[in-house]
Amino acid sequence: MLHQSDLTVNAAGHLALDGADTVALAKKYGTPLYLLDEDMVRARMKLYVTAMAEAFPAGSRPYYASKALCCKALCAMAHEEGMGVDVVSAGELYTALAAGVPGADICFHGNAKTPEDIRYAIASGVGLIAADGQEELERIDRLAGEAGVRQQVLLRVTPGIDPHTFAAVNTGVVDVKFGVPIPTGQALAVTKAALALRNIDLAGFHCHIGSQIFDADPFRLEVDAMLSFMDAVRQETGYTARALDLGGGFAVPYEETEPAPDCAGMIRQVAARLYEQCEKYAYPAPVISMEPGRGIVAAAGITLYTVQNVKSVPGGSTFVAVDGGMTDNPRYALYSARHSAVIADRAGQAQDCRVTIAGRCCESGDLIGENVALQQPRTGDTLAVLVTGAYNYSMASNYNRVPRPPVAALRGGADRLIVRRETLADVAALDL
Amino acid sequence: MLHQSDLTVNAAGHLALDGADTVALAKKYGTPLYLLDEDMVRARMKLYVTAMAEAFPAGSRPYYASKALCCKALCAMAHEEGMGVDVVSAGELYTALAAGVPGADICFHGNAKTPEDIRYAIASGVGLIAADGQEELERIDRLAGEAGVRQQVLLRVTPGIDPHTFAAVNTGVVDVKFGVPIPTGQALAVTKAALALRNIDLAGFHCHIGSQIFDADPFRLEVDAMLSFMDAVRQETGYTARALDLGGGFAVPYEETEPAPDCAGMIRQVAARLYEQCEKYAYPAPVISMEPGRGIVAAAGITLYTVQNVKSVPGGSTFVAVDGGMTDNPRYALYSARHSAVIADRAGQAQDCRVTIAGRCCESGDLIGENVALQQPRTGDTLAVLVTGAYNYSMASNYNRVPRPPVAALRGGADRLIVRRETLADVAALDL
Repeated sequence: MLHQSDLTVNAAGHLALDGADTVALAKKYGTPLYLLDEDMVRARMKLYVTAMAEAFPAGSRPYYASKALCCKALCAMAHEEGMGVDVVSAGELYTALAAGVPGADICFHGNAKTPEDIRYAIASGVGLIAADGQEELERIDRLAGEAGVRQQVLLRVTPGIDPHTFAAVNTGVVDVKFGVPIPTGQALAVTKAALALRNIDLAGFHCHIGSQIFDADPFRLEVDAMLSFMDAVRQETGYTARALDLGGGFAVPYEETEPAPDCAGMIRQVAARLYEQCEKYAYPAPVISMEPGRGIVAAAGITLYTVQNVKSVPGGSTFVAVDGGMTDNPRYALYSARHSAVIADRAGQAQDCRVTIAGRCCESGDLIGENVALQQPRTGDTLAVLVTGAYNYSMASNYNRVPRPPVAALRGGADRLIVRRETLADVAALDL
Repeated sequence: MLHQSDLTVNAAGHLALDGADTVALAKKYGTPLYLLDEDMVRARMKLYVTAMAEAFPAGSRPYYASKALCCKALCAMAHEEGMGVDVVSAGELYTALAAGVPGADICFHGNAKTPEDIRYAIASGVGLIAADGQEELERIDRLAGEAGVRQQVLLRVTPGIDPHTFAAVNTGVVDVKFGVPIPTGQALAVTKAALALRNIDLAGFHCHIGSQIFDADPFRLEVDAMLSFMDAVRQETGYTARALDLGGGFAVPYEETEPAPDCAGMIRQVAARLYEQCEKYAYPAPVISMEPGRGIVAAAGITLYTVQNVKSVPGGSTFVAVDGGMTDNPRYALYSARHSAVIADRAGQAQDCRVTIAGRCCESGDLIGENVALQQPRTGDTLAVLVTGAYNYSMASNYNRVPRPPVAALRGGADRLIVRRETLADVAALDL
């Protein structure tokens, strides 16, 4: 169960994260509470920065995919550790700028940017805008022209690779809302159009093949597909891309049975393939960016709840009701995603129960997990749900008008709040 | 397509809600925008109030299930139209009280109430707390004692009826996080325990069998199961319940092909069955409450978006990207729920396209619908998604740090904001 590397059981038998007693932290801050191991976050950031700097051409670096957990503190950490920041909305851009991230270190993504979004990104001097298609390119060109700027842009293309079936050039995989498909010939046509736009400086291409990728193979297929495409573009237009963004997708083990991927090793393998392909096509090696988000924060986070009651239905389930749920972690409701859990008060004891962890929302589907291994639960226990650093706080809602929990970060044994708890007044603050 | 009764096409060919031009409203307030037909909301509230007052014993009335759309304005409307208000959290209670709803008109629900929730409910003088089980009853008893109050309580039981298969006493259906099962004998045991608690005034029972119920049959089975249970309780303990809450579940047609249920007729049929069963058991007819939420607001609401781009994948889909998505309407991502849509600018034209409506979040699953009939879409169009009054604003999130849209209400031809638009600064306001 304790597969997050910084989880231990302390002398009191309590669950500890980064050495800090989680039962004491639950008392100090109240529950629900997101806890984030800042030491682990920074170590993961350094790992990607170092691995990419060593393996790829000069200037290559990771961008923190802030959608995984976007708040000022995380954007600041990414910047301090040498990452760029990937934002997908005006709200994420606002947050990164407020955290002191220079516009030049920001890449602005999204499949449905509004004119206001684009104006804001240009005015903020974002280093790159990833354009999602022809219409958006024309819109960026027009708005950059109005601002008197030549905007550096990546064109998002879909290479047609399924990261799980390893099926290359499967048109099913290009039938998505993002980007411009390569297999249909559209990517080449849109690239030509981009090169003709006066206020667009096409830096290169962006692609993203999926998430929860456990080894280098899908990324190597991606490199093959992209270099083949870039070579075709060069033959047709003479244009050589100087930048290539391979997207994110580094896997995170959510359960004990899943392996922890060797991200630095994957990066080295991808780099080897890149240089191989560049040699094959005699293509100057482009500067590489990648966009880890989940891979940085997921395993660094846990959520603490207080058990409100325990109910057993004879012949049915044991329901452990907690003071949070789909409002702070909608991943089971949305994806049937599995998370491990621990009774923090008795973390060293055997997990000899199988329970349903029920959220507090007035909705049957508000569950955090079913058939979850757990110590014998009791009302008043602190229950920890593991690997919740990504896509939990960032996806939180006020459904049932439940306030969002705070986020506390642990660094070198000290704890601090990086996001404060929402109040009842906050929840109703937009009501007129 | 125009199956919401207050939708029309005006002389300009634009979609109108309650007579108001939606294209003009999109310009006035910006998009995304939730629009609510307040005249329809109030008419629906009146319908339930009148039908229940006419059909059921004196004192019977509907409680507005505020989780469907909780904000001060809706709670105030419910109160003005003679409904009670059903709240499921401290946040909903706070909202109802702030809207001027007296505590006595509020019923407090939930399967995982914290001690703070219960103290707040008691201190607010809520008329009823629906207790979810034995542990919670004891907690309410203790906290009511501390407050020097004898708290009126309903005990939530699960009768074991599947509203869609009409299978009575199916233990599978009682294997849920809510309430105390009747078929297992637990409900009788917990009732006995409740009757022995000094600070609990057991008013009666609460049950809820599901949602999207299109006719009276499941409710009639529910009445049968409840009267049979109440008679068994009386035989065993001598206790006669004075109140029975039959929960919510009145269906709403989301697509043209679904019929609009006759709610007043359903209520009359349920009442006939109630009196029949009361006669059978010689049981004094209890005061009845029911909890419509979706049935009041869903069909009164639409959401307006602006089309940001249109992309077609040859041999694949046409993607219509809008400036909202799962952040304001997570129902497709969560439940694959289907909503109809209309290009508001050309609402009178034929819907001769089939499209995927794509949200703006950086997630492939952020769709509002697939294979949706639509007029030929163009960038800049106002796109209306229908029947979004329930479980849209209330479930909205800031995923990708997207601000939540405002809610504007239409009454007698006039429009007003009832929830203001969230700003970028609001979205980052909790960050430290």
